[in-house]
Amino acid sequence: MPILNKDMSVCISLSGRPSNIGTRFHNYLYEELGLNFVYKAFTIDDIEGAIRGVRALGIRGCSVSMPFKEAVIPLVDEIEPSAEAIASVNTIVNDGGRLIASNTDYEAVAELLAAHDVDPALPVVVRGSGGMAKAVVAAFRGAGFDRLTVVARNPQAGPALADAYGYRWAPTDPEPGEGVIVNVTPLGMDGPDADALAFSPAHVEAADVVFDVVAFPSETPLVRAGRDAGKRLITGAEVIALQAARQFARYTGITPTPDQVRRASEFSRAG
Amino acid sequence: MPILNKDMSVCISLSGRPSNIGTRFHNYLYEELGLNFVYKAFTIDDIEGAIRGVRALGIRGCSVSMPFKEAVIPLVDEIEPSAEAIASVNTIVNDGGRLIASNTDYEAVAELLAAHDVDPALPVVVRGSGGMAKAVVAAFRGAGFDRLTVVARNPQAGPALADAYGYRWAPTDPEPGEGVIVNVTPLGMDGPDADALAFSPAHVEAADVVFDVVAFPSETPLVRAGRDAGKRLITGAEVIALQAARQFARYTGITPTPDQVRRASEFSRAG
Repeated sequence: MPILNKDMSVCISLSGRPSNIGTRFHNYLYEELGLNFVYKAFTIDDIEGAIRGVRALGIRGCSVSMPFKEAVIPLVDEIEPSAEAIASVNTIVNDGGRLIASNTDYEAVAELLAAHDVDPALPVVVRGSGGMAKAVVAAFRGAGFDRLTVVARNPQAGPALADAYGYRWAPTDPEPGEGVIVNVTPLGMDGPDADALAFSPAHVEAADVVFDVVAFPSETPLVRAGRDAGKRLITGAEVIALQAARQFARYTGITPTPDQVRRASEFSRAG
Repeated sequence: MPILNKDMSVCISLSGRPSNIGTRFHNYLYEELGLNFVYKAFTIDDIEGAIRGVRALGIRGCSVSMPFKEAVIPLVDEIEPSAEAIASVNTIVNDGGRLIASNTDYEAVAELLAAHDVDPALPVVVRGSGGMAKAVVAAFRGAGFDRLTVVARNPQAGPALADAYGYRWAPTDPEPGEGVIVNVTPLGMDGPDADALAFSPAHVEAADVVFDVVAFPSETPLVRAGRDAGKRLITGAEVIALQAARQFARYTGITPTPDQVRRASEFSRAG
């Protein structure tokens, strides 16, 4: 029987409505790698008290979820460029009492654009204007993409996001054409919009790269359409696994192998 | 592989120098009873921040150790009589955001005096004047004992403890005689004083009841001498197991059986 011990490092997540994903992902890898760590999700509403607790209890790492990603900024000691770029934190590392904040969603998107060798000269259409859309748009900006359209019906959030990174906004999709199409809305996500295709078949057909940030299910209608059309694909499952792997590396100092990340990711999805 | 989940209730201990005992005791019983709980010891120096964290994270239960047993009093919402009696807290239960403090050391000693049917008419000698001696002396007072001598060389702490509960102080042992002898010093404890017998053989021989609060080892020189002399015995191992069982019951709402307590206690000592 594996039993916790007093010397274990503790990592946690702080969320208004946590899932089991992070808890299963991180503990799976701790077990696999034989690390004396344990991870637990907490449901909170007092982010200031929670961060006070992180300091007092010596919690090693802390994943930050909705709705605390901005509120946590004044509570930490250092903001890394990934969090600075989007004024949003999803990861805190406690380095001997000093809290260092970063955003591994941003980092994961940036890394996937590089890994999939997406040409910055391509035009990009990003559908969505929420927090994750900001991470995506900022990562495209950071990767040197100049032509990007934020498509969002919301006449405040859409233009605000586009303006913030020097891009244009449109309330509806542009004509189908070459380039990258990115979905950062709930279209295709488990739930009421599970069957929705985030872009028209004509858009998928015309695109070079299809990128769906929706992670549940891993096989969305858009991912399926992109695969059927033989397009280069970037999936939400890749984003979520990579961002978690980067959190893991920050907390433990150990970078898991791609195979370990894949298995931890599958395990996290099964629970 | 048992993996933590987001819905687990979390209990912790707060200490300047934690041992593994509580972590092993509680997790053993969670496992045995199939409870969705997890327990972890934390080393802290900021008790106020830690209690802030207990509230914000919704930690269910919290064992409080040296040196925070008094400092925590103004930080909780309610003090039960067991903690009030000695102005010392070793247990906090978070009841839907309301922190309720108690002292299961006091409760355990009181319960053992009753369970071993120790006659309150007997005279008592308590050797020691620290925090645990206070719990012991107060429990004797609560159980109706009128004749008790606190034996302590310290000319401040000794009289202060005796006065607080209406007893007398002596710097050295009284003559051997009938009654209860209680050791609440490190004499006989693992460490430099492991071989020390806390009372003289003549005191052991004359006594009716021999009570050693030292829990490590469970078989101290005093316990051995008391057993060899055929005396009624109360041991530190009983105290520590019973106080932990009472914490467990407060945290989970489930009272473990004596057999479960015995096995959890043995498991906790083996780690």
